[in-house]
Amino acid sequence: MTKYVYDFIEGDKDKKDLLGGKGANLAEMARLGLPVPPGFTIATTACRAYLATGETPPGLFAEIGDHLRELEIRVDKPLGDPTDPLLLSVRSGGKFSMPGMMETILDIGLNDDSVEGLARRTGDARFAWDSYRRLIQMFGRTVFDIPAERFDAQMQTVKSAAGVVADTDLTADDLRRLVVAYKKAFRAAAGREFPQAPHEQLQLAVQAVFASWQAPRAALYRRREQIPDDLGTAVNIMAMVFGNLGPDSGTGVAFTRDPATGARGVYGDYLANAQGEDVVAGVRNTVPLDKLDAIDPVSYRQLLSIMDTLEKHYRDLCDIEFTIERGKLWMLQTRVGKRTPAAAFTIAGQLVDEGLIDLDEAVARVTGEQLTQLMFPTFDDGALPAPLTSGVPASPGAAVGRLVFDSAEAAAATGDVILVRRETSPDDLAGMIAAQGILTSRGGKTSHAAVVARGMGKTCVCGAADVVIASDAQSFTVGDVTVHAGDSISIDGSTGAVYLGALPVRQSPVVRYFDGVLDAGNDPLVRAVDRLVDHADRIRTLGVRANADTPDDAARARRFGAAGIGLCRTEHMFLGSRRELVERLILATDEPERDAALAALLPLQREDFTEILEAMDGLPVTVRLLDPPLHEFLPSLEGLSVRVARADALGLDPGRDRDLLRAVRRMHEENPMLGMRGVRLGLLVPGLFAMQVRALAEAAAQRIAGGFDPQPEIMVPLVGSVRELELVRAEAQAVVDAVPGAPSIRIGTMIEVPRAALTAAEIATVAEFFSLGTNDLTQMGWGLSRDDVEGTVISRYLALGIFDRSPFESIDTAGIGRLVRIAVDEGRAARPELSIGVCGEHGGDPASVRFFAGAGIDYVSCSTYRIPVARLEAGRATVVGTTSDSR
Amino acid sequence: MTKYVYDFIEGDKDKKDLLGGKGANLAEMARLGLPVPPGFTIATTACRAYLATGETPPGLFAEIGDHLRELEIRVDKPLGDPTDPLLLSVRSGGKFSMPGMMETILDIGLNDDSVEGLARRTGDARFAWDSYRRLIQMFGRTVFDIPAERFDAQMQTVKSAAGVVADTDLTADDLRRLVVAYKKAFRAAAGREFPQAPHEQLQLAVQAVFASWQAPRAALYRRREQIPDDLGTAVNIMAMVFGNLGPDSGTGVAFTRDPATGARGVYGDYLANAQGEDVVAGVRNTVPLDKLDAIDPVSYRQLLSIMDTLEKHYRDLCDIEFTIERGKLWMLQTRVGKRTPAAAFTIAGQLVDEGLIDLDEAVARVTGEQLTQLMFPTFDDGALPAPLTSGVPASPGAAVGRLVFDSAEAAAATGDVILVRRETSPDDLAGMIAAQGILTSRGGKTSHAAVVARGMGKTCVCGAADVVIASDAQSFTVGDVTVHAGDSISIDGSTGAVYLGALPVRQSPVVRYFDGVLDAGNDPLVRAVDRLVDHADRIRTLGVRANADTPDDAARARRFGAAGIGLCRTEHMFLGSRRELVERLILATDEPERDAALAALLPLQREDFTEILEAMDGLPVTVRLLDPPLHEFLPSLEGLSVRVARADALGLDPGRDRDLLRAVRRMHEENPMLGMRGVRLGLLVPGLFAMQVRALAEAAAQRIAGGFDPQPEIMVPLVGSVRELELVRAEAQAVVDAVPGAPSIRIGTMIEVPRAALTAAEIATVAEFFSLGTNDLTQMGWGLSRDDVEGTVISRYLALGIFDRSPFESIDTAGIGRLVRIAVDEGRAARPELSIGVCGEHGGDPASVRFFAGAGIDYVSCSTYRIPVARLEAGRATVVGTTSDSR
Repeated sequence: MTKYVYDFIEGDKDKKDLLGGKGANLAEMARLGLPVPPGFTIATTACRAYLATGETPPGLFAEIGDHLRELEIRVDKPLGDPTDPLLLSVRSGGKFSMPGMMETILDIGLNDDSVEGLARRTGDARFAWDSYRRLIQMFGRTVFDIPAERFDAQMQTVKSAAGVVADTDLTADDLRRLVVAYKKAFRAAAGREFPQAPHEQLQLAVQAVFASWQAPRAALYRRREQIPDDLGTAVNIMAMVFGNLGPDSGTGVAFTRDPATGARGVYGDYLANAQGEDVVAGVRNTVPLDKLDAIDPVSYRQLLSIMDTLEKHYRDLCDIEFTIERGKLWMLQTRVGKRTPAAAFTIAGQLVDEGLIDLDEAVARVTGEQLTQLMFPTFDDGALPAPLTSGVPASPGAAVGRLVFDSAEAAAATGDVILVRRETSPDDLAGMIAAQGILTSRGGKTSHAAVVARGMGKTCVCGAADVVIASDAQSFTVGDVTVHAGDSISIDGSTGAVYLGALPVRQSPVVRYFDGVLDAGNDPLVRAVDRLVDHADRIRTLGVRANADTPDDAARARRFGAAGIGLCRTEHMFLGSRRELVERLILATDEPERDAALAALLPLQREDFTEILEAMDGLPVTVRLLDPPLHEFLPSLEGLSVRVARADALGLDPGRDRDLLRAVRRMHEENPMLGMRGVRLGLLVPGLFAMQVRALAEAAAQRIAGGFDPQPEIMVPLVGSVRELELVRAEAQAVVDAVPGAPSIRIGTMIEVPRAALTAAEIATVAEFFSLGTNDLTQMGWGLSRDDVEGTVISRYLALGIFDRSPFESIDTAGIGRLVRIAVDEGRAARPELSIGVCGEHGGDPASVRFFAGAGIDYVSCSTYRIPVARLEAGRATVVGTTSDSR
Repeated sequence: MTKYVYDFIEGDKDKKDLLGGKGANLAEMARLGLPVPPGFTIATTACRAYLATGETPPGLFAEIGDHLRELEIRVDKPLGDPTDPLLLSVRSGGKFSMPGMMETILDIGLNDDSVEGLARRTGDARFAWDSYRRLIQMFGRTVFDIPAERFDAQMQTVKSAAGVVADTDLTADDLRRLVVAYKKAFRAAAGREFPQAPHEQLQLAVQAVFASWQAPRAALYRRREQIPDDLGTAVNIMAMVFGNLGPDSGTGVAFTRDPATGARGVYGDYLANAQGEDVVAGVRNTVPLDKLDAIDPVSYRQLLSIMDTLEKHYRDLCDIEFTIERGKLWMLQTRVGKRTPAAAFTIAGQLVDEGLIDLDEAVARVTGEQLTQLMFPTFDDGALPAPLTSGVPASPGAAVGRLVFDSAEAAAATGDVILVRRETSPDDLAGMIAAQGILTSRGGKTSHAAVVARGMGKTCVCGAADVVIASDAQSFTVGDVTVHAGDSISIDGSTGAVYLGALPVRQSPVVRYFDGVLDAGNDPLVRAVDRLVDHADRIRTLGVRANADTPDDAARARRFGAAGIGLCRTEHMFLGSRRELVERLILATDEPERDAALAALLPLQREDFTEILEAMDGLPVTVRLLDPPLHEFLPSLEGLSVRVARADALGLDPGRDRDLLRAVRRMHEENPMLGMRGVRLGLLVPGLFAMQVRALAEAAAQRIAGGFDPQPEIMVPLVGSVRELELVRAEAQAVVDAVPGAPSIRIGTMIEVPRAALTAAEIATVAEFFSLGTNDLTQMGWGLSRDDVEGTVISRYLALGIFDRSPFESIDTAGIGRLVRIAVDEGRAARPELSIGVCGEHGGDPASVRFFAGAGIDYVSCSTYRIPVARLEAGRATVVGTTSDSR
């Protein structure tokens, strides 16, 4: 027969799959001989059987009964005994922590008889009756879905009758009356009496915990956190211990070191004569943990010794819940403690210093997400005023500016502004682009404002519900504070805080360090980051390059640790004053005109390339030939149409606008993303690619002549068929060959059209390298134009749970990832020496970086600020593995 | 040692892979004991070895030498003998016919000595010297790439000296001088003497034929015709026979039955005292073949008997080339004859009647392309005047209209017009849409005009070079004929002919038959089509449904043989007067307004569905929920902007336009194809899909109540993730369940987003059927927006050979086809009973239909006129196989 129930002593911390996190850690403490109240765990396998069939598996309750009997013998008290009852806590606990999502029922075993026994034993009738009424309420909610209001109404009635305001002022007799009222409410709502039989209470509680796994909010949480739906939860059943049996009792929480900085010491809080829920409810003030030394020195020293044992054993910061019942210390829970991003790095560094872990382990203990957080600017902790209010921290960073309520005004503003809206819509896009930060009073992490701001990398606080925007939209109020348009405010997208006035913004020390303006020496955080990223560099097999289009970008990327440029876009080289040359190229009516326009662009391009090759001397620079449609360099169709129509209506001469309008109309595309761009330009606009290739070859030749080491590569965008690449490659090779002194230049292709991935074996025969453009691969593979749908479809899909994360932020491994794997596997099978990079935004996303490492990619290329994150995650891929499960 | 050379007697007609088509058929005739001049074939394997290494395989020439010696013994003449020389023809011939693409060299063996022998033997010195100068010229061109002009210049000189105009007026002595001049020109261009040694001539000729396989025009032809590059060509070497040795000699071509109608009889041409090239050159008039009976009754009767043998043996119409040398008949070539589409069907029908082939074989003998041709309207053959001129037949059909030179004028014209342009550009699109037909004076089958017209299914004649458009663009001239704007012309896109005046257009009898307005009884073509399509129905496993959106469409599709509707688009149901309701829906500012707009649409939709279910009673009707973005139902952004700007400039009130402009601007998308459409509408516009589903369910309930048998299905467009489908399906199911009397309705999904194909296994768990939308799959898979790039990228890519055919016309099996196979294989593995259709345009393309049959698709759905083609090709897939090689 399947075994479903494990005494604590039968498990250990590595059995999280079977016993859940909480159960496994309780078992580990029991095995270490630490004072854990006796109990047992119902394994996740029982829950899974329940989920599959809708029934508890046969024999489960018999097995529970056996363990319960052993427990009763060990504590020498029967469950629900009317004189000295054993009481039980029943707690859910899955493999992964799901805070607030699952269920707990305390004091199972209380009934009309045993409540008297508890009162006698504790000498505290008020406590006993209060525990009983809490059980009825908790049991009613958890097992029978009885709404809290049903009980609240009774509480109100009893308080009125007693003439008191606070629950705590009720006497034991009041509470005894409340129990009568609660039982009546229970019967009315549940259609049955509150069960008096302790075993029935226990069985129903266990089933309720099983069922809670499928509650909608738990399911939604799992989808967001990518926790598989079929894991199920374990159930921990433990003898209750009481911290509220007098001054020699109490309860507390502790960390084995400072969770904010990682410093060793005694960190925690203690509350005498109290239960755990009192600490949470905050009805009385806790004292710092070291005060326990004066209250109960024996328990204190025992606790310190246990903390030392746990930290050495877990080799990490642990957090702990404990209770002292009449001078006897009990450990109720432990786990590896949560920590701030900064603490994660400093603790990992310190544990290495202390010899508890090695550097591999330290790298595994921090994440790219944490490092990302550390790279945003912040408000200076030292000088923070109290926030005016707060909302949902939707997109990180610290932003300061004058208040603007209108998007058009924000778009036209000079100086920094913060855009404040009830909620945003596509109409607000221009204002959002112009603003330093965005504040809304409605909506959460998947609202339009949140999703679009994250996409733009712009600071955003959403759903600050206390912010009431005036009807004339010239001010907002929070309580009795009114803030007017033009006033300065500061918002913190990492915490959700909103401050009055312009707070000083502090550049991230981590960024300043990578940028070379801060020495690592004095800051323990920066030292730890440096050390772990450096170790990640040593153990990683995945290379990291930068997406950089200008010499400044390139130089900074090099400081941030890029091993070259994986994507140098050439489109910015056609902007600004050069637009005029592009217009000439487009409006050219014959070959000489066209050639003249290209000839004028050539020296400008050459200079661009020369400077970038200088900044990246000795490292590869992958230059992507022009990708966007040419009409993107012209004014918009709508704008031109309006200008010409207005001139015509007024009888004025629209002049050159009319020619431009004709050209723009001829070149207009309904779907430019799927139109005349990339390699298609190269094959349809004579001389364009040749000019770019010549500029690059000449720039490289110049650098070589100067004694330097340029390593240019040519990348052809948007290839879908090997034949396109053959033609462009042949032309490019001929151009390079004709430039005296030019080096040999590798010619490769983007893989960004789904068909290119599907025919990678053919394309690899002609390409010297692949660079996977996962942005376009995602857009075309999903049929989603990111800019068009970010605030509509993507935002809604995140809310509906269709997306766990936007597929533009983190690679969709099932769909687009499959194309990636096909391209890598089949491309390399056809050409074993093929080098393969990734140059989409995903190249800087932690989970995606690990996926790419696992897929056999040679290097990722990402924007400068994400380079340290990519370096770290590439190292983590070596030590923690490459699936997204490697949290 | 590998055997490379096969005597004719060693081969047979099924060895086309090894011996090429020509060699295999010569061998077959030799085996049948027919009088074939002795010879042998160098196998394609030798050419392949040459292509792989650049050298003729070792031992090849020794093997050729052995066969040549046997040949000399059989004919009792040595090669190049100065008294009675054996002369040889050397002809290329691959597995597939490549007309005009490959090489022929005649009279190998002639040199300064043997030319005298030939003159003596034939008694015709002029002939001998003419043959010799032709050999030098042909050999020079083929083996040494000597341009024709080098020889033409010499010819001119000799003609001037002789004082004659025509080549034929040159005497033997003139030609003897010409040979001297040709040899000199040869030496100058080739850098060596014309080879006198016959064996050297033969070796060089064989190598030249091998090398000709890789000539650019041959490579391009193969790419267009999808002939693999690595097949190589065979080389046929045969003793020359001469039809120009007097009145008892001659040459001719024949068909074993009428290639236009299939009627039995004697069809062919004969030219006495002539060689084959004289027939081709047309210097003298041929006589009908039956006149040979009077000239040489013995040879005539022998020829008839041979034709009968061949037809019975090949069980098909054969065409034949023969020569009579001094009363002795020689067969030079035979092959299964080319024929018109009409003849293909009638011949196949007649061969069945004659018991030569069975119906399976008959179905294999015709193609969907031929049937497509037969369904276009034509000009009445009986009354055809001489054409004014002709061009490239670029897009079939017969179009009549008044001449218009300006696209804007064409777009605004009432009545039928033919748009005439030098060439077209995207500016001409509106005019092309409005015109009946398009005529251009420049460009070929891949020009903008040709590609766009084919995409629209519009008649087009391109590159009619004789058409000279006047500078004022108000007339064109052809020679001395001037045609003015407003005059009527007629163009035939199937032949390229251009006629003056409005010719009567004849609806295709095949279409009239399927449409039920013509009886099959009297027309042999229609009878044959009916019989073969009917047989295809019996043997096919692939179903055929229609894409139909209206009751009329549905009824006609049923007449054309559709087994239901595979795609009923609902977007047309939002057009016309209903646009106003869509505007109300979009402009609604609250829920009641939105619900009111939907409520007004409900009864209209219900009526649409009722009528379609009526027309398809008893057959499935797959209704696709709304797919296009809602803003497509509003006026264009450009148009509205201009209207509002004009009103503002003039100080007028733009009224409702301003509200609409605001809405259109908010909803504007840069790439609507990748925007808010399909399932995304269903998830973001509350009530929209529910209204459509309710209308369908109510319509079905009404029909059931009336005693009928509606079989509606609901299809969700643009699904990329299983979760989208789960949500929409749950909502739709709830709506259906709430309609009293509604039948159970299957709910499935389009697979048109690449990610849907890649995750088909997941999606299949929720979908009751798949319908592969290969249009969008192609657009997204290639990253190509068809409408935007048809006249630019696609046209250019066809010209460059990147596309063999537009991937929108015929499925790209390597790329998009791979997605199709993934979707089918993995969808069905997850849900074995899943039914899978295709509803892209490809569902009516012959090669694609066979591909789909091979991929395991259950049915294709196509537009009405393509249903018979799909039915036929589905049957052919059963008998000829499913690869595109099954020509």
